[in-house]
Amino acid sequence: MKKVCVIGAGSTNYGKAKESITELAVNAARDAIKSSNIEPKEIEYGLISNVFGVADKQVHLAPVIMTNLGIPHVPGLTIESACGSGSIAFREAYANVAAGFYDVVLAVGVEKVTHTGTTRSTTLFSYCSDFFYEGGCGVSFPGLFASMARAYITRYKASEEDLAMVAVKNHENGMLNPKAHVRKRISVDDVLNSPIVASPLKLLDCCPFSDGASAVIIASEEFAKKHGGEYIEVIGSGRGASPAALQNREDLTTIPSTRAAAMQAYKQANLTPKDIDFAEVHDCFTIAEIVDIEDLGFFEKGRGAAAVREGLTQLNSEISINPSGGLKSKGHPIGATGIGQIVEIYEQLLNKAGERQVKDANIGLSHNFGATGASCAVHIFRSV
Amino acid sequence: MKKVCVIGAGSTNYGKAKESITELAVNAARDAIKSSNIEPKEIEYGLISNVFGVADKQVHLAPVIMTNLGIPHVPGLTIESACGSGSIAFREAYANVAAGFYDVVLAVGVEKVTHTGTTRSTTLFSYCSDFFYEGGCGVSFPGLFASMARAYITRYKASEEDLAMVAVKNHENGMLNPKAHVRKRISVDDVLNSPIVASPLKLLDCCPFSDGASAVIIASEEFAKKHGGEYIEVIGSGRGASPAALQNREDLTTIPSTRAAAMQAYKQANLTPKDIDFAEVHDCFTIAEIVDIEDLGFFEKGRGAAAVREGLTQLNSEISINPSGGLKSKGHPIGATGIGQIVEIYEQLLNKAGERQVKDANIGLSHNFGATGASCAVHIFRSV
Repeated sequence: MKKVCVIGAGSTNYGKAKESITELAVNAARDAIKSSNIEPKEIEYGLISNVFGVADKQVHLAPVIMTNLGIPHVPGLTIESACGSGSIAFREAYANVAAGFYDVVLAVGVEKVTHTGTTRSTTLFSYCSDFFYEGGCGVSFPGLFASMARAYITRYKASEEDLAMVAVKNHENGMLNPKAHVRKRISVDDVLNSPIVASPLKLLDCCPFSDGASAVIIASEEFAKKHGGEYIEVIGSGRGASPAALQNREDLTTIPSTRAAAMQAYKQANLTPKDIDFAEVHDCFTIAEIVDIEDLGFFEKGRGAAAVREGLTQLNSEISINPSGGLKSKGHPIGATGIGQIVEIYEQLLNKAGERQVKDANIGLSHNFGATGASCAVHIFRSV
Repeated sequence: MKKVCVIGAGSTNYGKAKESITELAVNAARDAIKSSNIEPKEIEYGLISNVFGVADKQVHLAPVIMTNLGIPHVPGLTIESACGSGSIAFREAYANVAAGFYDVVLAVGVEKVTHTGTTRSTTLFSYCSDFFYEGGCGVSFPGLFASMARAYITRYKASEEDLAMVAVKNHENGMLNPKAHVRKRISVDDVLNSPIVASPLKLLDCCPFSDGASAVIIASEEFAKKHGGEYIEVIGSGRGASPAALQNREDLTTIPSTRAAAMQAYKQANLTPKDIDFAEVHDCFTIAEIVDIEDLGFFEKGRGAAAVREGLTQLNSEISINPSGGLKSKGHPIGATGIGQIVEIYEQLLNKAGERQVKDANIGLSHNFGATGASCAVHIFRSV
């Protein structure tokens, strides 16, 4: 297997976009190409991550994006795994480069849904659940994560304030991210007093619906060295899966796919959770981040809420969790999110993250899942 | 790179399905697993090919399918590349096994759209074109392929009868396929007298909208040998791409992605077109099959229509093209089609194709593209 690197990264603003899905993707791809200092014609393969192209009337995105980049002969495809699409597309790009099929691969994540409105977006997103048992029975994602939150609070004597503190911390980080969707400082009281969506989750426990695109250029180490620009190295890649419907899980306070993917990634990187300097984790709802930081091994089972309460996950504390602002503040354009996390890790490890820079960032981890964690990928990166 | 084999294959009937998208996929997967004589728990990875899961309210199909197969811990993802999704998912499965990431991979293609009706299906499918320039301007796929047909007829002095003969031949083959969608013998006059859809294409020049699922089990040669059952070998795999919109092609009588993918596959297999005994090719419209058999090198440029007219592509003639009945008669559940072609090749090479058996079939080729050929994959298989 070849060593694999990320040699460029770019992103649009996350938020409500006026651009088409194609324009968003092409803009992010152009930024990534520019930052990598390669020519588009050096790209050999393109992986697009997207879930609801139908919402903007364009599926079969790879040829459209490649044509717009002036490289219509470059083959590609779209990868979908609900909200985990981005990291799973990255995983396939990693696999193709590691195996030697291609030397330089473009991975672009994109989503455009906000123009369809909240009701239509919620309906579309519910198709990512096990629809026969969940969405189709009227339980959309806030309800599913509320079940997890209630189970966690009950078992580990956590509080709704603990959940709120995840949101407060991520909004604090998002204030430092010029591309974040929701750049607004909030207090615990703001969260607790926001409208209940699915008890115990309130509006400010939930990430927004976002449009946006993120892109990275993945290359073999050989190409990266020869090319001569800045790059970071992928040192661990793991995949995991869980039963699709929440009702088939044995425990609502843990996500099996996260644990499986993390175990693989740590093993490959020959590292333990203690070695990770910062992580971008999947905080679609505040409860998710608490479960994530336990499943990823940063804190013991049941200690996640207390860790948040004690400030151990704040920027430049024990472990910086979601320095970008996370899905909660940076935003969650579902096909783009997993790639966007890697854009953040690229910038952090190259010391380009501006005001939200994690000090002495050397090793970063990305964690991104689909639905309630039915699919998941974890990657570990190192500065060189 | 490891040698890669297909050790099992299964398919539902193609047609109008009462089953859900999940049931279709699971039924095909179970048939493939049964034919391979492995246990589901031996599967390590699952690639699903699907385009319009939204039409049946279920995207994020991999975890749902894996859960229904009793292996919820097995990771997977969905691959979309319009009507070429199946072969491109197969290509990714091939790459993952060849590289040694997994030993046993399930690839399932599925589509369920007919319940949405012809108007909605046509609208959805038009999102596979370059929608800004094509679908959004009112040109759906019959119109795009009609442009290709008109260019071909004009340049090469072919006739509408020649196109019709592709349909007649494929329906003849489909009569021998118990799983085909449209099992009906037709005449050249039937085609010529059927309603005009987009001149010169009539209704019987067009493949149907179909539901259905097909699945294959892909394994390393090492696993296949140890396992001891029947299998066929993948000896060539190629990918290609063309400009997304037809207007950006230099020539409407050839599809660049087919030529690029075929060249790669022939090179890897160390074979020429003359070595191919039979091929499943992408005949979404009759004109497509004529262009395909030229681009794949079976006949010289401009000779495809004459070859059809002379009966050289009939079952057990010079080269058997679409012994299954092709998209035209077997049907075209768009996410399943590319995998379904490989199911046919598996059955042919193992001498299990019943009445439509190609005599002395030793080497088979599959050719499947997305939209008007913006994306394409070609694979070559050999009996062992």
